[in-house]
Amino acid sequence: MTNFSATRALFDVPEGVAYLDGNSLGPLVRSVPDRVARAVREEWGTQLIRAWNDAGWMAMPDRLGDRIAPLIGAAAGTLTTGDTLSIKLHQALSAALTLTERRVILSDTGNFPSDLYIADAVARQAGGRLTSVEPEAVADALSEEVGVLMLTEVDYRTGRLHDMAALTARAKALGVVTVWDLAHSAGALPVNITGAGADFAVGCSYKYLNGGPGAPAFIYAAPAVAGRIDPAIPGWLGHAAPFAFEHSYRPARDVARFRVGTPPVLQMAALDAAMDVWDVADLSDVRARSLELSERLIDGVEAACTDLVLASPRAGKDRGSQVSFRHPEAYPIMQALIARGVVGDVRAPDILRFGVTPLYLGEAEIDACIATLAEVMDRRLWDDPAYRRRQAVT
Amino acid sequence: MTNFSATRALFDVPEGVAYLDGNSLGPLVRSVPDRVARAVREEWGTQLIRAWNDAGWMAMPDRLGDRIAPLIGAAAGTLTTGDTLSIKLHQALSAALTLTERRVILSDTGNFPSDLYIADAVARQAGGRLTSVEPEAVADALSEEVGVLMLTEVDYRTGRLHDMAALTARAKALGVVTVWDLAHSAGALPVNITGAGADFAVGCSYKYLNGGPGAPAFIYAAPAVAGRIDPAIPGWLGHAAPFAFEHSYRPARDVARFRVGTPPVLQMAALDAAMDVWDVADLSDVRARSLELSERLIDGVEAACTDLVLASPRAGKDRGSQVSFRHPEAYPIMQALIARGVVGDVRAPDILRFGVTPLYLGEAEIDACIATLAEVMDRRLWDDPAYRRRQAVT
Repeated sequence: MTNFSATRALFDVPEGVAYLDGNSLGPLVRSVPDRVARAVREEWGTQLIRAWNDAGWMAMPDRLGDRIAPLIGAAAGTLTTGDTLSIKLHQALSAALTLTERRVILSDTGNFPSDLYIADAVARQAGGRLTSVEPEAVADALSEEVGVLMLTEVDYRTGRLHDMAALTARAKALGVVTVWDLAHSAGALPVNITGAGADFAVGCSYKYLNGGPGAPAFIYAAPAVAGRIDPAIPGWLGHAAPFAFEHSYRPARDVARFRVGTPPVLQMAALDAAMDVWDVADLSDVRARSLELSERLIDGVEAACTDLVLASPRAGKDRGSQVSFRHPEAYPIMQALIARGVVGDVRAPDILRFGVTPLYLGEAEIDACIATLAEVMDRRLWDDPAYRRRQAVT
Repeated sequence: MTNFSATRALFDVPEGVAYLDGNSLGPLVRSVPDRVARAVREEWGTQLIRAWNDAGWMAMPDRLGDRIAPLIGAAAGTLTTGDTLSIKLHQALSAALTLTERRVILSDTGNFPSDLYIADAVARQAGGRLTSVEPEAVADALSEEVGVLMLTEVDYRTGRLHDMAALTARAKALGVVTVWDLAHSAGALPVNITGAGADFAVGCSYKYLNGGPGAPAFIYAAPAVAGRIDPAIPGWLGHAAPFAFEHSYRPARDVARFRVGTPPVLQMAALDAAMDVWDVADLSDVRARSLELSERLIDGVEAACTDLVLASPRAGKDRGSQVSFRHPEAYPIMQALIARGVVGDVRAPDILRFGVTPLYLGEAEIDACIATLAEVMDRRLWDDPAYRRRQAVT
């Protein structure tokens, strides 16, 4: 059983802050600063170029992949890390389209917008098209016309959770290649990508994996398909022998062919330290406790703030690790909350979003969120010009 | 006039090491550790999600672009940073092919292999092909059949320098779109990308810009073409309004549309600190002094080591900021050198490569390199099984 007092002690969350925005940027794990400083001062500073071998830099993309793999139910050697989620998604979708003659990518309108931009671009470049339907209509929209199903498991606005196993099974039965975006899943809830039989998965590591701002993304390719892919972006480090400097591209083994350029060593050092959390945290426990805290948040807010409308599914089994409410004044309400030490975020036009992870949150923070929100709403504290001033990042 | 004692004091090169491998990984700039630590502890650790605004994280890709721009003769607002060189090259080549109906990409066989892999993939995906000729044959191979000319200005093995102005002018006269890879140019020698009239340029920042392992790449797009591009990888942060979460992609202004995903903030913090070197270093001075030191190295090695054959152009004007020699036993020779505190690297099959930058190198290091190399060759110190053991990264 995970000891959540122990996991909380691993995080350096500022005193007096209830941080419910780990679904956007996970907070600092205490071991990260020293690990990054070591990469900078000792490895780069003193080993210089030798650090690619001596400090294991070159092995980091795959080693971090192997650390993330168990969290999504993937075997060692089926995941690698690097780049950003957009790039990894581009690679996965391009690869998926080489496994089928069909040219339609199916997604849903609740997907993260830039996932849809990338899917649209990749489909068009391949002479096909993207079709997006309502999230609830995905199962029925699957057909033998569809080449690739690309879904984000957890909706970034509402937290609505797709049934990955059922949708993947249905897709496979129709000969549809599957690509899952696990941005809001990895580290938030148990995922069984192998059991689902999905072909590809991608995700980021700066949310529930707490890898830090701009932490590398990951890509999973099922062993059955990985070796058949001719990558659309044939990078130096995706070559079977990068340092042979061969004139022609030969893909590296399996998922390693999705490595591209020089690994971001400092970001990877941060992620590596942050991954130590999973040595003492069990994802099933995290999920159970997250649902418990989420229910407390929903019940408390609904009782105290009648103007806020629950935007997330009410049943825990249909929800990821976040709780969202709608209000036309979501933006100033959230600014008022943040000014009072309760940090969530907003998603246009009207969503107040709270990430709920027990790794560093407990009843105290949930209750602070409820009480502060109630005060902000009761006393209309949000109705202040200062809270309407828009920032670049919202 | 640049004071090279002052620039040298900005670097933290280990005592007793002559580091002639800055063309692979620039050494640590002394201000970097504190800048990175601040990004980790203060910005991420205490500002958390607010740091995207308050610490200026979201502005970093373009701000760093504006810091690099003068070094390649680009105007503010025409350069952005992020991802890796492979990704930026993929974007530039994909963009270039949208500006012409012709489907041939022309490059040369001296180009970095993975530049050729990417060019080949991009060309084939667009229904075209890559043609590579000998570096000396590029000018003659340009024709009205060629859609895009893609060259690396400085050859990664020999240091041979292309005549960017002449080749770009010839390409433009024939209606050929130009893409320059400045990996071994930026920070090594003055580049005038605007004056040359090139359409795109890309480069990395971990070599002569000393941004650290996995530092972000850069991409330049000429103002005349940037606004006409529909990016092949339409990323979240290349959208005109990323936080409006619009259902369709609308490109950001000019080169900003080549931003893709979440910026690697820790890598960018390191690069930002490293760029301070250019507040006190003038690139023309760097170039002049680099040629002076390079000539000293060539003369010294040729006089002392008759078995080594100069692989670089003899005339400084034809050479970048590195000096290379050939020897069939290049690998063990370099290992023997490194064991004696002189760090260069090898490129298969037979190239000994030395990067010469006056930012932190002077006569003492050049003379140490010559003397150590002479000793290693005279006494056949390289002929030791320990020096033949291959490492993952060579």
